[in-house]
Amino acid sequence: MIPSQVVNTYPLSSYTFGTKEPKMEKDTSVADRLARMKVNYMKEGMRTSVEGILLVQEHNHPHILLLQIGNTFCKLPGGRLKPGENEIDGLKRKLTSKLGANSPALVPDWQIGECVAIWWRPNFETIMYPYCPPHITKPKECKKLFLVHLSEREYFAVPKNLKLLAVPLFELYDNVQRYGPVISTIPQQLSRFQFKMITN
Amino acid sequence: MIPSQVVNTYPLSSYTFGTKEPKMEKDTSVADRLARMKVNYMKEGMRTSVEGILLVQEHNHPHILLLQIGNTFCKLPGGRLKPGENEIDGLKRKLTSKLGANSPALVPDWQIGECVAIWWRPNFETIMYPYCPPHITKPKECKKLFLVHLSEREYFAVPKNLKLLAVPLFELYDNVQRYGPVISTIPQQLSRFQFKMITN
Repeated sequence: MIPSQVVNTYPLSSYTFGTKEPKMEKDTSVADRLARMKVNYMKEGMRTSVEGILLVQEHNHPHILLLQIGNTFCKLPGGRLKPGENEIDGLKRKLTSKLGANSPALVPDWQIGECVAIWWRPNFETIMYPYCPPHITKPKECKKLFLVHLSEREYFAVPKNLKLLAVPLFELYDNVQRYGPVISTIPQQLSRFQFKMITN
Repeated sequence: MIPSQVVNTYPLSSYTFGTKEPKMEKDTSVADRLARMKVNYMKEGMRTSVEGILLVQEHNHPHILLLQIGNTFCKLPGGRLKPGENEIDGLKRKLTSKLGANSPALVPDWQIGECVAIWWRPNFETIMYPYCPPHITKPKECKKLFLVHLSEREYFAVPKNLKLLAVPLFELYDNVQRYGPVISTIPQQLSRFQFKMITN
């Protein structure tokens, strides 16, 4: 038997959650967002974004931490790399910006793990694909999802305008209507890992 | 930048396809299949099955080799492990049984790569999940999908009652109606790899 790669998963209750100043969305509509993407593309070329999959467990089942904006839209913590920025450094910077305390001593020592998915945006549109479609020579965005290995204890500071949710894999699976194509297929992308549920 | 793992992908035209004696399905209906699964479970415990993802390229886009039975149902080459059998050995045995020539000298030297997905069957039913659902202590089947790294040239012998198809990722993606939940999410599970398209 080939051992699956083991990912230690700690109870949600071992983490502490506080709040910090709001992080407002840069755009107020999808149209604004795509227009800003176009302007940035003209200046800097293809957008590269990085997002983190932070896992916790409840009732012996893996849950993913998602940031909820308003009452419906959920996203993974992460964001756009600066031109030339290293992916790992950029993801750490974005995780700290989204979930780190203002006091540097309290910011988690983010352990960035495996890349589990890559999505491509061929045009200045909302649709993305898990491959660069044939005949697309200049994709507009490449988004990479990484596992983030959490320690046994962490303090997360959640921007006041957002909610941090721990969503079970069984809720994400086959639920593209609620979570969209990227987040709803994370269970399939994580299936090859063995989650070691650690209780305390 | 972290390099994605590179998978060499050769043109479909570099492979040769012949035929061999038919490999009939053991069951003539889904009900028969589930009943046989139950009998085997009583004798041998949880079924472990292994399947191979064999990649080729056409028009610079990755394609997966699928075996088609009749006019609609498609499956990956693979099958059930014998009790105690090693996963890699079992997958090689199954690939040879499904796609290897009768002459041992012509059988590919199968290079089994990464496990890309694991699916669980909680009950003697058709539905499977990419995790073992909470409260299921005795799953009935565990199915593992592995990348198979093909060499530049291979000879495949296809059983006469089956068709071997090279299906592009863009055809599989978001096409659960045609290919089912396991095969239709292979594009998302392969998205983290970089496919190096080799022409000849």
